[in-house]
Amino acid sequence: MSKIAVIGLGAMGYGIASSILRAGHKTYGFDVVTTQTEKFRAEGGAEGSLDAICGDLDAVAVVVLNAAQTEAVLFGEGGLAARMKTGAVVIACATVPPDFAREMEARCAKHGVLYLDAPISGGAAKAAAGRLSIMASGSKEAFAAAQPVLDATAETVFTLGDAAGAGSAMKAVNQLLAGVHIATMAEALTFGMTQGVSPEKFVEVISKCAGTSWMLENRAPHIVSGDYTPMSAVNIWPKDLGIVLDIAKNAQFSAPITAAALQQFIAAAGMGHGGEDDAAVAKVYARNAGLTLPGEGT
Amino acid sequence: MSKIAVIGLGAMGYGIASSILRAGHKTYGFDVVTTQTEKFRAEGGAEGSLDAICGDLDAVAVVVLNAAQTEAVLFGEGGLAARMKTGAVVIACATVPPDFAREMEARCAKHGVLYLDAPISGGAAKAAAGRLSIMASGSKEAFAAAQPVLDATAETVFTLGDAAGAGSAMKAVNQLLAGVHIATMAEALTFGMTQGVSPEKFVEVISKCAGTSWMLENRAPHIVSGDYTPMSAVNIWPKDLGIVLDIAKNAQFSAPITAAALQQFIAAAGMGHGGEDDAAVAKVYARNAGLTLPGEGT
Repeated sequence: MSKIAVIGLGAMGYGIASSILRAGHKTYGFDVVTTQTEKFRAEGGAEGSLDAICGDLDAVAVVVLNAAQTEAVLFGEGGLAARMKTGAVVIACATVPPDFAREMEARCAKHGVLYLDAPISGGAAKAAAGRLSIMASGSKEAFAAAQPVLDATAETVFTLGDAAGAGSAMKAVNQLLAGVHIATMAEALTFGMTQGVSPEKFVEVISKCAGTSWMLENRAPHIVSGDYTPMSAVNIWPKDLGIVLDIAKNAQFSAPITAAALQQFIAAAGMGHGGEDDAAVAKVYARNAGLTLPGEGT
Repeated sequence: MSKIAVIGLGAMGYGIASSILRAGHKTYGFDVVTTQTEKFRAEGGAEGSLDAICGDLDAVAVVVLNAAQTEAVLFGEGGLAARMKTGAVVIACATVPPDFAREMEARCAKHGVLYLDAPISGGAAKAAAGRLSIMASGSKEAFAAAQPVLDATAETVFTLGDAAGAGSAMKAVNQLLAGVHIATMAEALTFGMTQGVSPEKFVEVISKCAGTSWMLENRAPHIVSGDYTPMSAVNIWPKDLGIVLDIAKNAQFSAPITAAALQQFIAAAGMGHGGEDDAAVAKVYARNAGLTLPGEGT
């Protein structure tokens, strides 16, 4: 039984913390939203302030929004890196630039703390079930120290290299594709509507054709049913495609399709749909073309 | 045993003609490239000039490049529609605008000729094997008359409606997605290379993640192996995405992601790669970013 803390109890972090707890570890959960912290304790999370217990932890999973929050947790005021014990591991799950991951690994090493670059994929439901995909890179020691957390939370661990950066690079590649595929699904589905192809028929036929994608099969049914309960929100994509394009710009890499897709998600957020399921990017197309999506007002 | 002609013996048409022949029908093949016509006869195709036999045909599959060629075959100088017998069927396989398909159906009807709007999907290998997907719409009579051809050439026939247009609409939707997915695969694969993700690792990991697509799994291995033998050529996409955007413009539908993808294929053709496999769109990204793809000069 290890002592493990999860920092960040949002949709993904709460599921990760619950999976670790279920695996029998002494599991602490912390969030700036204190009701989340209390909820996790009520469901069996360990008691104790972060200040009091951070020197005892074997592993800390940082499941926050981005690089800035990750850095604040590790090296901000009261940052954990300087207070964790030698040989403990930070498992960094946010989508961040590869260079940032390398920097965090080096700064943690100065404190004798291991660092696993471990962005996650799979959504809230798989997080809760302990069935995430983790795109991980780091030293052999970091992998070994993180093993209890990986075992408890992941269905698939991709081991992508012996140093931080490679995990985040693969995550960025995956997010580029996933984001573009969602927006393209919306573009194609609504284009089809202008030609008399119903959303139902679109899903039925295209999912069996060369035009299909994982995201199309996963998200297009949300449009068919008119249900935009956020499995993964529109607001994820201005953030994640923004990270992708920042990395690309720094590498002088031109990514025009990603840039076009990003604009559609920004427009969806601008229309007020940022908190809805990301399939709601279809509403941008529908409004522009005067189409009525399933479930929308008559 | 029916009497069937295939007009257009390119990569797709030759396979279709061979499949019909293999099914035991009296099969005529014609192409403006007369060596193709002769090759098909040498392999068992029926003898006879189109002028001599067109009044006897039960079905004509028109497997040409676009709407203009389809119209020329049916209604140009010596066009077939006026010379086919009553109740014979035209099976129109090119990617064309839905409005064009509806117009062809109406004009054929004036000559007592049935019309099946039947764009095809699956590539040359599946055409040769008689295992195409066909997105078909047309009258019950047109489907019935076309049945021997559908049986001989298709693994899957999507029956999309009782009038021409719906088949072509679904084909346009599929081509939008397929073209964007190929270009996005190339964008993501080369972006990954700037971050240390090798093309091999890209295929290995992403094909198991939410970022995958049918086209990614089919085309990315061509880049890994550096083999651009055209299974489906770059030049298909300026044509097909151009058709999609023409249809969209006429419907006042804004398709910014499709437009961005189209530019990448145009650039690939402009670089001289138009005759290569469409995965060669990756060469646009590689050149822009100073990357060397597998199999390229050292």
